Amino acid sequence: VTITRSAIDTLLHLFRRGHVETFRREAVDLEPADLADVLAELDELERLDAVRMLPAEVSADALAELPEEAHPGETLAALDPAHAADIVEELADDDAADILGDLDPHEQERILAGIEQADRADVERLLGYQEDTAGGIMTTHLITVSDGDTADQALAAIRRQAEEAGDFYQVFIVDRDHRLVGTLPLKSLVMSPGDRPVRDFMDSPDTTVPPEMDQEDVARLMSRYNIPSLPVVNAAGRLLGRITFDDIDDVVDEEATEDLLRFGGVSAEEGLEVPWPAAVRSRLPWLFVNLLTAFLAGAVVYLFQARIQAVVVLAVLMPIIAGMGGNAGTQALAVTVRRLALGLLPRGQFLRTVVREGTVGVINGLALGLAVGLMALALGEGARLGLLVFFAMAGNVFIAGLAGAFIPMLLERVGVDPAIASSVFVTTFTDICGFTLLLGLAGLLLS
Amino acid sequence: VTITRSAIDTLLHLFRRGHVETFRREAVDLEPADLADVLAELDELERLDAVRMLPAEVSADALAELPEEAHPGETLAALDPAHAADIVEELADDDAADILGDLDPHEQERILAGIEQADRADVERLLGYQEDTAGGIMTTHLITVSDGDTADQALAAIRRQAEEAGDFYQVFIVDRDHRLVGTLPLKSLVMSPGDRPVRDFMDSPDTTVPPEMDQEDVARLMSRYNIPSLPVVNAAGRLLGRITFDDIDDVVDEEATEDLLRFGGVSAEEGLEVPWPAAVRSRLPWLFVNLLTAFLAGAVVYLFQARIQAVVVLAVLMPIIAGMGGNAGTQALAVTVRRLALGLLPRGQFLRTVVREGTVGVINGLALGLAVGLMALALGEGARLGLLVFFAMAGNVFIAGLAGAFIPMLLERVGVDPAIASSVFVTTFTDICGFTLLLGLAGLLLS
Repeated sequence: VTITRSAIDTLLHLFRRGHVETFRREAVDLEPADLADVLAELDELERLDAVRMLPAEVSADALAELPEEAHPGETLAALDPAHAADIVEELADDDAADILGDLDPHEQERILAGIEQADRADVERLLGYQEDTAGGIMTTHLITVSDGDTADQALAAIRRQAEEAGDFYQVFIVDRDHRLVGTLPLKSLVMSPGDRPVRDFMDSPDTTVPPEMDQEDVARLMSRYNIPSLPVVNAAGRLLGRITFDDIDDVVDEEATEDLLRFGGVSAEEGLEVPWPAAVRSRLPWLFVNLLTAFLAGAVVYLFQARIQAVVVLAVLMPIIAGMGGNAGTQALAVTVRRLALGLLPRGQFLRTVVREGTVGVINGLALGLAVGLMALALGEGARLGLLVFFAMAGNVFIAGLAGAFIPMLLERVGVDPAIASSVFVTTFTDICGFTLLLGLAGLLLS
Repeated sequence: VTITRSAIDTLLHLFRRGHVETFRREAVDLEPADLADVLAELDELERLDAVRMLPAEVSADALAELPEEAHPGETLAALDPAHAADIVEELADDDAADILGDLDPHEQERILAGIEQADRADVERLLGYQEDTAGGIMTTHLITVSDGDTADQALAAIRRQAEEAGDFYQVFIVDRDHRLVGTLPLKSLVMSPGDRPVRDFMDSPDTTVPPEMDQEDVARLMSRYNIPSLPVVNAAGRLLGRITFDDIDDVVDEEATEDLLRFGGVSAEEGLEVPWPAAVRSRLPWLFVNLLTAFLAGAVVYLFQARIQAVVVLAVLMPIIAGMGGNAGTQALAVTVRRLALGLLPRGQFLRTVVREGTVGVINGLALGLAVGLMALALGEGARLGLLVFFAMAGNVFIAGLAGAFIPMLLERVGVDPAIASSVFVTTFTDICGFTLLLGLAGLLLS
């Protein structure tokens, strides 16, 4: 059902060959998300041309779906201000604030000057909130009913407001100071006799959030309690806006992206589609930090140089012992980081989790140690070397399991994002432990 | 707003001390997801006792929110069949099918025997679909209006059906063969004159899905096109059920969990909360596969033993060159795997992506190579060794970038889940390349 690669290519081809009329006709029929895919593949100047030739409501919907990396705000800023204002008027207020939020205040002002006063005030209010908070993702367009109304009066009020409000899934009941006193699923309204006061069949507004709440917390809350439309209220209880499920589905994806990138040792700010110079700037500093930890692993080997020279098979064993520790540690880390991210690890389970991963580490370590130990014997390396690799492997895999569980939980406890304990970090740690065990025990067992 | 740790502890304490009345009173007032958190911390026998003392509608809602790992189905099966049937009757049909799906057909039958024939038929139909498909997550409870109705007739039809249907966000228009011919957002219904035929103001059903569609594709589709309620139709166009946003929010989390676990070298089947024996069974086979690849890295070192014995500082450099390659490769891999997961990497961008990551690899490799090369000089290791570490580091980080992008895209192209190219896999690959480069070039440069 999603647009195919060849349909995108056809549209790109039409546009680039100057078949303006055909391009426009086909573009207008696309779903906004599909047209956004086409626009995303154009360069900035082409995108500007395409937006110039499309009706304002069509380009508005598509720009709202364009990924941040394609900078829809810059396209708006490059249009003449009257055309940009037409597009902004077609946008939902939260989408308008998202797009304009990337521009400097001067450019925002230039575009907003052209739109209706009421719409402008809504967008400006939303621009005042941090992008990744409840205020930054809510819309101010909602349907309110006075707490003194009957069902019939409420229905009339809803009809008056519905044209402006976009899709809605429930109605908010407010008192005369615009304080939220209840919510009304459309289902209840449809099913109530006309003369019944809404007060009698409204739901109490169990869950409300302040505009400062982090968007990730908002997403978790809506998903946990299956809330289709979440009211945002200020400290005085006044209703400021609402957040619907389509405002948060991207949040869950964004957070998952950040977690996977951090786990892989990439800063979450890099995102997925930056050009290579930005990727270099984002990754190189982190690699230099890792270089220091790699030097630590090298330093351990340095201390044992004489022993390696004497028994050079130790150099062959080094990557095997260290690597398997890294693998086992990364497994424990992945499970623990994800449990923390989903809020599945209450503090009371700290010890239980370390014990669990430690137990898994002991058993996996003994199994792997036995395997490599027996293999060393089979290769005729002698019982002492067999014992050495057994102990080093078992010990390192055990320590790796403990570290993979302990480090992220410790970070969480002291208030640091546990995802910075990336696989990269645990891998270096297990390198150091593995070398120390292998080369240190070699002194005891092989001397 | 979420239940606090101390509130959970209080309830656990009340329950375990036998304060049945107080526990019941407090439990009944909780949100289902919060009560589920409490039940999840009880052991199986305690959970059974708790469910026995709660009203059927309260335990039904909580069991629906219980994580799979707590096996709500087994709790149901352990109740006496009449009580279990009472609970199933309170469940939405999709939740009932989810919970009963974990039981064997004989146990399902024993419980379903006690519920109303119509409800039973719904649940049995849903049990026929695979758990992770559109059919497995849809509900059959939906509101349909005949395509010959006026707005007023539609409203009357909706009132008749609304009690059964749970929350709903739009209404489906069907012909006399129950084929889907349109959809009606409640907003349109509320705003239309009573004598207008629904046919005149219904939306055409642009997006429908077959019951076999994978739940991940369903989630992407609903999120991409902001669909609040997605109709599921069979090959003949007959309406089978609907999927709403609250059916898919867990899907996105589940998929993100699977991806992070696979990235960390853990089978997605392990999940996040299995007891340690299951974790050992899941991880050990994968570690044995990794052991084979670790032996390959060891084998490379084995080939160069004589050289290491002659120039033992090579053993010190080994973990530094190999480790930094692993880190850079993991970075490229994380970005590429996530882009593939989100569908952000169309096939046309295969080459562009490899070139991008290769460019990042060259530049980061040169920078890191220069740093370690100069450091070797500063430590008085001589120009030849400085040159050696420069080339080995630059080359390995470059190859790591290419591999991190190339391997997952290649897997995707040949139809293998790219997430199996975990960090563990890339790390071993860069170990092998790093050792080969370092020890191989040492023969050229240091002889």
